[in-house]
Amino acid sequence: MSKILITGGAGFIGSHLADKLLEDGHQVTVLDNLSLGRLSNLEKALQNPEFKFIEGDILDKQFLCKVFEDGDFDTVFHMAANSDIAKSHRNPDVDFDNTLSTTYSVLLAMKDYGVKNIVFASTSAIYGEAGVSVDENYGPLFPISHYGASKLASEAYISSFCENYGFKAWITRFPNVVGERATHGAIYDFINKLKKNPKELEVLGDGTQIKPYLYVKDLVEAIILVWTTTDEKINYYNLGVETRTTVKEMAEMVIEEMGLEAEIKYTGGNRGWVGDVPDFSYSLDKIHKLGWNPRVSSNEAVRKSIRYILDKDGVLV
Amino acid sequence: MSKILITGGAGFIGSHLADKLLEDGHQVTVLDNLSLGRLSNLEKALQNPEFKFIEGDILDKQFLCKVFEDGDFDTVFHMAANSDIAKSHRNPDVDFDNTLSTTYSVLLAMKDYGVKNIVFASTSAIYGEAGVSVDENYGPLFPISHYGASKLASEAYISSFCENYGFKAWITRFPNVVGERATHGAIYDFINKLKKNPKELEVLGDGTQIKPYLYVKDLVEAIILVWTTTDEKINYYNLGVETRTTVKEMAEMVIEEMGLEAEIKYTGGNRGWVGDVPDFSYSLDKIHKLGWNPRVSSNEAVRKSIRYILDKDGVLV
Repeated sequence: MSKILITGGAGFIGSHLADKLLEDGHQVTVLDNLSLGRLSNLEKALQNPEFKFIEGDILDKQFLCKVFEDGDFDTVFHMAANSDIAKSHRNPDVDFDNTLSTTYSVLLAMKDYGVKNIVFASTSAIYGEAGVSVDENYGPLFPISHYGASKLASEAYISSFCENYGFKAWITRFPNVVGERATHGAIYDFINKLKKNPKELEVLGDGTQIKPYLYVKDLVEAIILVWTTTDEKINYYNLGVETRTTVKEMAEMVIEEMGLEAEIKYTGGNRGWVGDVPDFSYSLDKIHKLGWNPRVSSNEAVRKSIRYILDKDGVLV
Repeated sequence: MSKILITGGAGFIGSHLADKLLEDGHQVTVLDNLSLGRLSNLEKALQNPEFKFIEGDILDKQFLCKVFEDGDFDTVFHMAANSDIAKSHRNPDVDFDNTLSTTYSVLLAMKDYGVKNIVFASTSAIYGEAGVSVDENYGPLFPISHYGASKLASEAYISSFCENYGFKAWITRFPNVVGERATHGAIYDFINKLKKNPKELEVLGDGTQIKPYLYVKDLVEAIILVWTTTDEKINYYNLGVETRTTVKEMAEMVIEEMGLEAEIKYTGGNRGWVGDVPDFSYSLDKIHKLGWNPRVSSNEAVRKSIRYILDKDGVLV
């Protein structure tokens, strides 16, 4: 049994992690400022006596110290971050503050309160436009989004804190993740556009962008597997799914699930927005060697997401 | 002719860069808060009508905006950083603030004032304990000092700014650099210790740590060569010297140049301080292909440094 702090634990991925870690018998405290997270994601967790929710901001140093002083944690799952990659093109501070500075603040608090274990939500975006089949030891690392830059910067500090203060780290790098409780992304955008105009769907780019979409519950299992079965100073793994989904397939699935016959209009070009990586997949050999494989394919995961959103909004299924 | 801003241009490396860029016919403005830099380093530059010195802090946003508004620069050589790697073990903020946040502030100002070219002083420390013969595409990047983490984080943001705002970057990675105007480091420490006790020199570690020491004027030539002859979106080069110097050799040279017969006492262990990389060298094939080779060997560079320090202090030669 571990005493775990999950930062950003009311968010999409963090809340699934909270559910699973509680199920596995751990004590879980979630810290979230509810800027992207939602209390409703923690409905189930809140009924568990081993669970505690604290609302507040990681960048408030005094507050964070208090959380660590009271918590007596042995492991931090640091999930808090901006999760809307496109957003910081206009304002890079969004990611510098919410994705990097939050990591740095958590590391300082861990150092000051003697917490030595950190599990970190990193991203395929650190690889930039590296192309296909990238493994964990790929270089050079030139991320093209501020989000990717902030996650790589976070990894860098996690590494130097490991060396300087005897921390141990589990760095898991995520592709696009979909499923229940997702709060934004292309699927949402498509559904919203179709609600406004059920006859036509404008899609950014030419529809050929292709990415692996990992189902959130598969992701959470992999994160916990890496944490429980590896023991290097820094353990780092790509997490993902071998199958991929094009933007065109996603758009067609949304239209189908909404029961519409909308025409798709592509704006052209091979990327949806600046910082988008149009054709990405990375090597999963390392995580496969740990015996993990996702249960849900990329297309199935996308469809689950669509159905979840539509269901919640009372439109369909 | 370029209109150049050198941040940290009153420092050790920055001031040599200022001299050389003025010699090459450019307009040069130096911005420095004089926390590590010295006006005396700019003695020669200050006599040049194409040169301007501005004292102030990069982290003061309003001030920095004014500098960019007045300057109409086309290229920034961003040299400002903490340069004492050992210092931030106790206080990681030293590097987060002075090495990373300064870079981020400069990038924001460049974005806001339409300056598109950045030449950046990066470091071999981004490679962590990668070992020998590391080339520019090495991964994974797990720096072990906060200095290395802050430089890698800086590279990451430079990369995302290139993609988001059409910047071009020249990233040059330095080994240990020595020569005239150096302000600290092992050579200084040895000389100071021997002034206190000319009979015995205590050396951290076991003396076997071995590193390439690049002469500052060779370094400056290489930086300018990379900037003037490469034209990718991101141009990145290891700079260095093939020869290396052990701590033992350095200690012996200091004792010899001071005309002493001190006994060396080693504290033991293979590193001088946490974050120190005991055995490092990296591949210089890429920069050699540009036709550059340093004129001065590692041992010669170290000796030049020793003689410079002793001369200035009036002790010898």
